[in-house]
Amino acid sequence: MYLAPMQRIYLDNAATTAVSDEVLTEMLPYFKEKFGNASTIYSFGRESRLAVEKARKTIATWMNCKPGEIFFTSCGTESSNTAIQGAIRDLGCTRIITSPIEHHATLHTVQFLNKTAAVKVDYVLLTENGQVNLVHLEELLSSSTEPTLVTLMHANNEVGNLLPLVTVATLCEKYKAYFHTDAVQTVAHYAFDLQQVKIHFLSASGHKFHGPKGNGFLYINQEISIQPYLHGGSQERTMRAGTENVPGIVGLAKALDLAMQNLAHDSNYIASLKNYFKEKILALPGVSLNGDTENGLYTVLNVAFPKNEKTEALSMSLDIQGVCVSGGSACSSGAEGGSHVIKGIYPELTCVPIRFSFSKYNTKEEIDQVLEKISRLIC
Amino acid sequence: MYLAPMQRIYLDNAATTAVSDEVLTEMLPYFKEKFGNASTIYSFGRESRLAVEKARKTIATWMNCKPGEIFFTSCGTESSNTAIQGAIRDLGCTRIITSPIEHHATLHTVQFLNKTAAVKVDYVLLTENGQVNLVHLEELLSSSTEPTLVTLMHANNEVGNLLPLVTVATLCEKYKAYFHTDAVQTVAHYAFDLQQVKIHFLSASGHKFHGPKGNGFLYINQEISIQPYLHGGSQERTMRAGTENVPGIVGLAKALDLAMQNLAHDSNYIASLKNYFKEKILALPGVSLNGDTENGLYTVLNVAFPKNEKTEALSMSLDIQGVCVSGGSACSSGAEGGSHVIKGIYPELTCVPIRFSFSKYNTKEEIDQVLEKISRLIC
Repeated sequence: MYLAPMQRIYLDNAATTAVSDEVLTEMLPYFKEKFGNASTIYSFGRESRLAVEKARKTIATWMNCKPGEIFFTSCGTESSNTAIQGAIRDLGCTRIITSPIEHHATLHTVQFLNKTAAVKVDYVLLTENGQVNLVHLEELLSSSTEPTLVTLMHANNEVGNLLPLVTVATLCEKYKAYFHTDAVQTVAHYAFDLQQVKIHFLSASGHKFHGPKGNGFLYINQEISIQPYLHGGSQERTMRAGTENVPGIVGLAKALDLAMQNLAHDSNYIASLKNYFKEKILALPGVSLNGDTENGLYTVLNVAFPKNEKTEALSMSLDIQGVCVSGGSACSSGAEGGSHVIKGIYPELTCVPIRFSFSKYNTKEEIDQVLEKISRLIC
Repeated sequence: MYLAPMQRIYLDNAATTAVSDEVLTEMLPYFKEKFGNASTIYSFGRESRLAVEKARKTIATWMNCKPGEIFFTSCGTESSNTAIQGAIRDLGCTRIITSPIEHHATLHTVQFLNKTAAVKVDYVLLTENGQVNLVHLEELLSSSTEPTLVTLMHANNEVGNLLPLVTVATLCEKYKAYFHTDAVQTVAHYAFDLQQVKIHFLSASGHKFHGPKGNGFLYINQEISIQPYLHGGSQERTMRAGTENVPGIVGLAKALDLAMQNLAHDSNYIASLKNYFKEKILALPGVSLNGDTENGLYTVLNVAFPKNEKTEALSMSLDIQGVCVSGGSACSSGAEGGSHVIKGIYPELTCVPIRFSFSKYNTKEEIDQVLEKISRLIC
C-alpha cells in the first residue's frame, strides 16, 4: 500500500515561525566568512561591528527611536527579565502593577521579585473578555505614590487581546509610573512609533516574525538608565555582556525590515485568512471564541470548542493529521493545571480552547483542509 | 595598477572562531524546515525537542556527566552569571574567592554581588607568571567557615595559563567550598571527565570551538540545585526560560562532537604551529612571553614585545596587512587602562603584549608570513 507523505499545515505561528529565505541568506556570510568578533578593533572585527550597528539602526528606524535605545538580547524572555529586574533594582520601583494573564517571562519574574525583593505586586482586574480593566488600572495607579512599574503585554500570546497601548502609556505618564510592555507578539506585525507613545521598556523576539531563534531586543527609553542584567564584557555599551551573536542580530534586523516593508500586504493577507477561518469555524455547532474578538491580533484566533470526547482529543487528532496548533487544556481539570491565561479570563469555563495562529506562508487551501479535518473530527 | 586582494590571516581564535562547514550543515535544516518550537507537544515540535535532547546527550557524553546536568544558555557569560549569582542566592554562599585576572563575566558579576548583596570577596594571590598561588588559596579556604564559592577560570583567555583543575577542585572539596570554573577556553580543546574532578559549575561557549555565536552551556552538578537566572517558561527543566535556540544548540553539540573526535590530531597540529611560532618569535631581539609558558593553552601565545614606536603600532600595522591578532595595551599608560590581566600579573611591566591564538584552520605558511611581517615591522 502506498502512503503519500503527509503535508504539514503549520498554524502555530504565535509559538514560533520559519526563518524566511531572505533572512537566512542575509545571515549565512556571518557564520563562516565574516565571523569576526564584533568587539575586536581590527578591521575584520569592525566589519562585524558595522553589521551589528546597521542592524540596530534598521530596528530603530522602524520603531522610530534612537539606535542607542535598542539593545540586543538572546530572546524576549531575557529582554523582559532585564527590564523588570532593572526597574526594581536601579529605578527604585517598590511596586509592580501587572495582570494575571501576562507571559510567564513577566509573571515569573514579578513573582520572583515579590518573593526576594521588597516589591509589592498589584494585579489589575480583567474585563469579561480578558482586557485590562482600565478603571481599575487607574485606581491602582492613583492609590499610591510608591515608585511603580507597570508591566502589561501589548498583545496576549494565547487569546490575542490587544492592549490599548497609548491609553495605558498615557495613564502611566499621568501617575509617573514606568511602563514596560512585552511586545513579542506585535513587533513586526504592527507599526510602532515610539515618539508618539511613552514607553520605558519594550521587549521583542525575532523568531516570532521569521527571524532566527535566540535573538531578541530590548528598547530602553533614553531618559532612563539601568544596569546590565548579564555582567561581563562591555558589549552593547555595557548593557548586555556576551559576544555579539552577529548572524542572529543581522537576521533579526532583516526579518523586521522585511516584515515592515510588506506590512500592509502581509497583514491584510493574514487577516483575510484568519477572518475566513473564523467565519467557517463559528458555523460549527457549539463553537465560540475566547478573548476580545474585536480588539485582537490579526494573527491569532483562540477557539472555544464545546467540551466532549472528540474535542478533548482535537489537538492531538489534528497533530496526527499533520496540523500544528496549540492545544490548551485549561478548561480540563487535572494535575497539569492548564493555561493560566484561559483560567485567568474564564475561571468557570468548561470549553476546549485551541489557538490557531497564522503567517504569510499559510494559504487558503490549508485553511480549507484544516476546516474539513476539524469538521470530520468533531461533528 | 592592479592590487591583489589581501589574504586575511586570522590568529585571534581565542576571541572567536569560524563556524565549520560540518557545523553549519548540521544547523541549516533547523532554520526553515525543522523550525518547530521545542516546547510544543505536537510531533513537529517533538522533532525539535529530540534534536535538543540529542545535543544535550552528546555534550554530556564527552564531558562524562549526566544529560540532566547540562543546561543550554546564550553564551559563556550567561552561564557564569547564572552559576555565580545562583551560588550566592540559592546555596547560601556569603564569600567568593576569585582571582584578579578572571574574565569580566566573572569579575564584574562578583563585583556586582559584592556591592549589592552581603557577599565578601577574597582575591587569591598570583605567582609571578600569573598562576593561582595555591598556598594562598588554601590559606583563604581554611581561614573561614563561611559558605564559600570559589570561581577560577580553567584557562586564562589572554595569557593562556592553565589552572591545575584537579588540585583546586580537591582543595575546594576539602574545605567544603563550591567550585565554579569558566572553561570557555578549554571545553572542546581538552578532554574532560566530570566524574574524576569535583566541579559544581562549569561554563562553556560554542563560538570558541567553531560552533555558532549566541550559544553556550552551563554544567551544574546534580548534587546542587539553584533557581533559574532567566525567569519565564519551563524550558531547560525550568532552569533557563526562553524559546530553545534549536539550530544553535544543534550546532554547539556538533562542534563539540567534531572537536572531541579529532582532539588528538587537532591539538597536536595546533600545538606544533604554536611551538614553531614561539621558537621563531623568541629569536627576535628583546621578545619574551607573558604568562606561564610551561602550563598554558596549546592554542594561545601571549608575546611581550619590547616597547618602542614600532611595537606600539604593531597590532595596528598587522591589521593593515591583513593579520588579526589581539593587541593588548595594558603596559601603556592612558585613560583606557589596558588589559586587567596583564596588569594583574605584571603591574610594573613596560612591554607591548600581543596575543596570538591558533586554530586547526591555520597553516604553517600563514605562520611564516606573519613572522616575516612582524620581523619587517619591528626590526
